[in-house]
Amino acid sequence: MLLMGESINGTRKQVAEAIQARDAEFIKTLARDQVAAGASVLDVNGGVAGGDEIADMTWLIETVMSVTDMRLMVDSASGEVLEHGVKLVIDKGGQVPFINSISGEKARIEACMPLVEKYKTPVIALCLSEDGIPPTAEDRYAVAKELHDLCTGVGLPAADIWVDPLVLSVSADSTAAMVTMGTLKLVKENLPVSTTGGLSNVSFGLPNRPLLNRAMVAMCAGLGIDGAVLDVRNKEMMALIKAIEALRGDDPFCGNYLKAHRAGLLGE
Amino acid sequence: MLLMGESINGTRKQVAEAIQARDAEFIKTLARDQVAAGASVLDVNGGVAGGDEIADMTWLIETVMSVTDMRLMVDSASGEVLEHGVKLVIDKGGQVPFINSISGEKARIEACMPLVEKYKTPVIALCLSEDGIPPTAEDRYAVAKELHDLCTGVGLPAADIWVDPLVLSVSADSTAAMVTMGTLKLVKENLPVSTTGGLSNVSFGLPNRPLLNRAMVAMCAGLGIDGAVLDVRNKEMMALIKAIEALRGDDPFCGNYLKAHRAGLLGE
Repeated sequence: MLLMGESINGTRKQVAEAIQARDAEFIKTLARDQVAAGASVLDVNGGVAGGDEIADMTWLIETVMSVTDMRLMVDSASGEVLEHGVKLVIDKGGQVPFINSISGEKARIEACMPLVEKYKTPVIALCLSEDGIPPTAEDRYAVAKELHDLCTGVGLPAADIWVDPLVLSVSADSTAAMVTMGTLKLVKENLPVSTTGGLSNVSFGLPNRPLLNRAMVAMCAGLGIDGAVLDVRNKEMMALIKAIEALRGDDPFCGNYLKAHRAGLLGE
Repeated sequence: MLLMGESINGTRKQVAEAIQARDAEFIKTLARDQVAAGASVLDVNGGVAGGDEIADMTWLIETVMSVTDMRLMVDSASGEVLEHGVKLVIDKGGQVPFINSISGEKARIEACMPLVEKYKTPVIALCLSEDGIPPTAEDRYAVAKELHDLCTGVGLPAADIWVDPLVLSVSADSTAAMVTMGTLKLVKENLPVSTTGGLSNVSFGLPNRPLLNRAMVAMCAGLGIDGAVLDVRNKEMMALIKAIEALRGDDPFCGNYLKAHRAGLLGE
């Protein structure tokens, strides 16, 4: 499973403070810790309320790239910031970064498609349309299909389109997780794309969120999800992922699982 | 998810000792504890090496039925014991019990089909043929299809056929869990039966077995497994199942999940 580390995100209070204070050590530690924990992509989001997002993103990317050559994921609601971030990473000799994210919204498509076409950036493709998050799996799948057609149309390999079926909280709607999983199933069966998700929304408003989040990740893993956007520093989640990889046959002779056990990382 | 409590099983040392000593309180407590923990079916297996299995099964069933009217699952390798157990439960006014288990083996089919036909007993249907456990999902599915045809052919509703895709340990074969899940998928897509499994074999020979077992249950739950044969007294597993049921939309307004949280059953 491709683990996308979500922790360098200006919408989180501590990270926002580090960005504002230009606390490079804090960001470097976050980057190093996520790489050590097993992230294969590092999300970088400089969206601090009231900040200069281009300047913040520039500083974040330079700071992270000073300690790791791990692949980055430029994360912004602004097309301008995405473009700036992608160019900066490439100019500095980094691997072409992921874009987080394109969706079925017109403005996002217009902002992202030139980057996808020019740089062949892998993209997180949210199953979200102009009218919001569709309530049915079929309608979310339709967005995934549209984004697949658009991105492959400009030469992006389908495997670089990382469809996120999106999830709402089951506290508000009992069917929320099933719609997500239904979308995942349709996408897996019908499109040659990759799949991922920031799944922890599912537990919003409920107690024992980590338990629900782990259950959701494992259930989606059963359905073949290819990646996940998560806090790779969460030990229980990472122990679960080691177990999932052993069960999915992605860990020959359970080597990583046994190694994690010997390192005391599996708990119990 | 239909939870089949596995704990009253003479192959377990403490249970064997209780059977031999006719320690009714031990068995009653096991029965009550499993019902309290959320089991909807109680497996009863009197197979103690060197014992008189008919006498032992009789005592077990009478003991369990003296404290609960929960549905039983008569579990034996002997057709004679199965028949005796089924008749006894029905004679004593219990619900028609499950049979654990039929399989694609000739001898098992011959032993079980008369009971299925006569009493319409729900059955655990193991994806096991005369040649052992088939190595591929397709061949396991073929056994499920054969058992479906046989049982529905004598009037058993398809939903009362509980196909167990079987699982071997991933420590011996990295693809073991994937073959199980592949079988589950084929069965769910093609047969109107129910599905279940004693999934804990998957972790045999590995450390931190409960972690692997929970991951396996959740992954199979993502694929829509309808039941599981397990130790319902395991708190972490049951917390996970509460989470799974909330995520599958089987727990309106997350009522049971919140109740379990308030009762301190979800941990963390």
